[in-house]
Amino acid sequence: MNRREFSLSLLAAVPAIAVSARQSPPKLRLNGERLNAHLTELARFGKTPEGGTNRVAYSETDLQARLYAMNLMRQAKLEVSIDAAGNIIGRSRGSDATLKPLMIGSHIDSVPAGGSYDGQVGSMGAIEATQTLAENNVRLRHPLEVVLFQNEEGGTIGSAAISRGLTEKDLSIVTNSKKTIREGIKFIGGDPDNLAGAVRKKGDLAGYVELHIEQGGILHKEKINIGVVEGIVGVYWWDVTVEGFANHAGTTPMNQRQDALLAAAKYVDAVNRVVTSMPGRQVGTVGKIQAFPGAFNIVPGKVTTSLGLRDMDATKIQMIFEKIQVEVRQIETVTGTKFDFKPISDSQPAPTDARFRRVIDEAAKQLGLTTKLMPSGAGHDAQEIAALCPIGMIFVPSRDGISHSPREFSRPEDITNGANVLLHTLMRLDQ
Amino acid sequence: MNRREFSLSLLAAVPAIAVSARQSPPKLRLNGERLNAHLTELARFGKTPEGGTNRVAYSETDLQARLYAMNLMRQAKLEVSIDAAGNIIGRSRGSDATLKPLMIGSHIDSVPAGGSYDGQVGSMGAIEATQTLAENNVRLRHPLEVVLFQNEEGGTIGSAAISRGLTEKDLSIVTNSKKTIREGIKFIGGDPDNLAGAVRKKGDLAGYVELHIEQGGILHKEKINIGVVEGIVGVYWWDVTVEGFANHAGTTPMNQRQDALLAAAKYVDAVNRVVTSMPGRQVGTVGKIQAFPGAFNIVPGKVTTSLGLRDMDATKIQMIFEKIQVEVRQIETVTGTKFDFKPISDSQPAPTDARFRRVIDEAAKQLGLTTKLMPSGAGHDAQEIAALCPIGMIFVPSRDGISHSPREFSRPEDITNGANVLLHTLMRLDQ
Repeated sequence: MNRREFSLSLLAAVPAIAVSARQSPPKLRLNGERLNAHLTELARFGKTPEGGTNRVAYSETDLQARLYAMNLMRQAKLEVSIDAAGNIIGRSRGSDATLKPLMIGSHIDSVPAGGSYDGQVGSMGAIEATQTLAENNVRLRHPLEVVLFQNEEGGTIGSAAISRGLTEKDLSIVTNSKKTIREGIKFIGGDPDNLAGAVRKKGDLAGYVELHIEQGGILHKEKINIGVVEGIVGVYWWDVTVEGFANHAGTTPMNQRQDALLAAAKYVDAVNRVVTSMPGRQVGTVGKIQAFPGAFNIVPGKVTTSLGLRDMDATKIQMIFEKIQVEVRQIETVTGTKFDFKPISDSQPAPTDARFRRVIDEAAKQLGLTTKLMPSGAGHDAQEIAALCPIGMIFVPSRDGISHSPREFSRPEDITNGANVLLHTLMRLDQ
Repeated sequence: MNRREFSLSLLAAVPAIAVSARQSPPKLRLNGERLNAHLTELARFGKTPEGGTNRVAYSETDLQARLYAMNLMRQAKLEVSIDAAGNIIGRSRGSDATLKPLMIGSHIDSVPAGGSYDGQVGSMGAIEATQTLAENNVRLRHPLEVVLFQNEEGGTIGSAAISRGLTEKDLSIVTNSKKTIREGIKFIGGDPDNLAGAVRKKGDLAGYVELHIEQGGILHKEKINIGVVEGIVGVYWWDVTVEGFANHAGTTPMNQRQDALLAAAKYVDAVNRVVTSMPGRQVGTVGKIQAFPGAFNIVPGKVTTSLGLRDMDATKIQMIFEKIQVEVRQIETVTGTKFDFKPISDSQPAPTDARFRRVIDEAAKQLGLTTKLMPSGAGHDAQEIAALCPIGMIFVPSRDGISHSPREFSRPEDITNGANVLLHTLMRLDQ
């Protein structure tokens, strides 16, 4: 037991007279040891030999982990239910019946062969914050909802079901569990035939705050405790096809080739050059490539590849895309090939709320923690919820920025710090 | 009937007194119409809707085409047999029992979804030349062997069986017919358990001449009738692996990436730059590429790709490979990746015989045809046979240089020219 926990014990010993958050002492701290123990227990569901977690949405391990988490939520005095979309929601009443709920939470599903922190830190952190409030008889003015969104890794499905509803097309997607989303929702206790019941309207929520690991290496590298997220970047994906002309690699002189792979190589290099040629934190990634027919002795006649661009500023993305197009026109001329870009996804940037950012920053500083304002390069459920209410996000450091990997790791003390910031942000927003 | 055929008819009308090739009139011409009709008939075996030929070795259509060709060989007064390796060999005796055989021929198997000229022109051309000799009672001093090598497209398997023998590893290769080479040899009438019987020793043959389509676009572009092949280029293949570090495409800043695909792109561009930076007819091809894990949202951690280099000069290949390595070391440094090159094939250059080249050139010029000395960028059975005896190769133009495609095409008159050059080369070599 450290000094902080000692003072918390003293507070817990106060007789059960409900105190409002406004009156609650700024020294309130959650039980970091218990929080990290919960994370360790949660990691048992789908543990891989490599030490990571394989807990794709709608799998048996996902179901088991959800039961475990619901139990923790009940211990934290939350009234637990599963909405029609399969999201787990734990509610506690506020003292002011006229206020809309504040929502906190994250997700506990993982990518295939993923880590034990992504989503899970925010989920266990939200439950621990609630438990701390309950143990200390701190009653918020706002109703509180702790949410564990289902299938975040499959494309923020649970939060999309709340913010904009799912389409029949969404429901028919076959997920990593081999189940369709429709089957998956049924499997985890939702009701895919009554999804309208899960949809919230703009204004139904007072705000949403999500704690999450950074998944990048900035906080770790710069030794900063807390990332105050300025927003979730827009994510734009294109399928790219390069058409050249397949020919015999032995008999076709170099100057008579229309080599689709040479063109694609110049394109990959150009994407990197354009994206890094201007200041800012935009990223551009070519993640896929394959040459056809794909043989030692044939000049590639076709290449399928991709483009992914992310930034907080949609107009900057547009400018970068146009610069890449200028390069591509030159590559087409030089190589005798033809490029085609087919848009696959254009999730718009979702800025966080200015007041929420300020509150998170103040809460962290009051706790003696260093902060950095930063975008989230990864997508999150908060992005969907931004359509309904003001949002805020709190990042904690990821070691070496590794995520979606068994090597994903955040230090217990960083996790505890992040959850304490969540707790105090919640109390400050409640005022 | 054109003027040439008329004079040939006159010759054919000469009473059946055997004349030696030495005495044979230089005006001897083969029947181009019949030759091209045979090619059209042969193309029926495995004809594709696209107008090409799908006749992979050891397939049912391969078997049918072989029966058709053997029948033509018998009509050309050849004594036909299948050697232990499955090669079709048609023999005729020479007038001088002390001489070793001259060999001519090619192959009639195709690549999957290939054309109707590759190998087939040389095969039908050799049979037509023999038929012409027979019809005109021209008896060569040397014994003659017309050979149709089996499975050239699978790696000059039939000619390798003659020149160096096949290994157990060769025999276990699963071919495009789904049969192993062992099964395939059995299927086409060979005896895979007695392959030693098919092997020839150095000096067993007086020489080998192969007529073939160029498969490149040089003769067509330069409007030249006949390519006198100076040799078959060495072909060197490497499997190339690039190791970087897979990471989240949204959260990993551009300057913290170890992007295996960016490195591979710079490599593909460097191969092209190095190969084209020096004079000569060397070619360098990167035909394969794939990124792993291969997703929009993951910086590629690994890329598998390839390298193919071809030239008549093995030391030049070595120099090019070393220059590429210098570039690769720089790319590794800039991108934080690691390259590995694993040699897959190193078929050495096979120069043709200087006398054979001169004879082909003289034969063509005597026929009023233009010639060009050129390397063969593609591999051929002649390459294997070069280990046994002097070789020569005659090329005819390929329209637009397209090969291994249903669009492969050579004009009937070019085919007839090539076969006439083969005929006269044979007669001149016989002297």
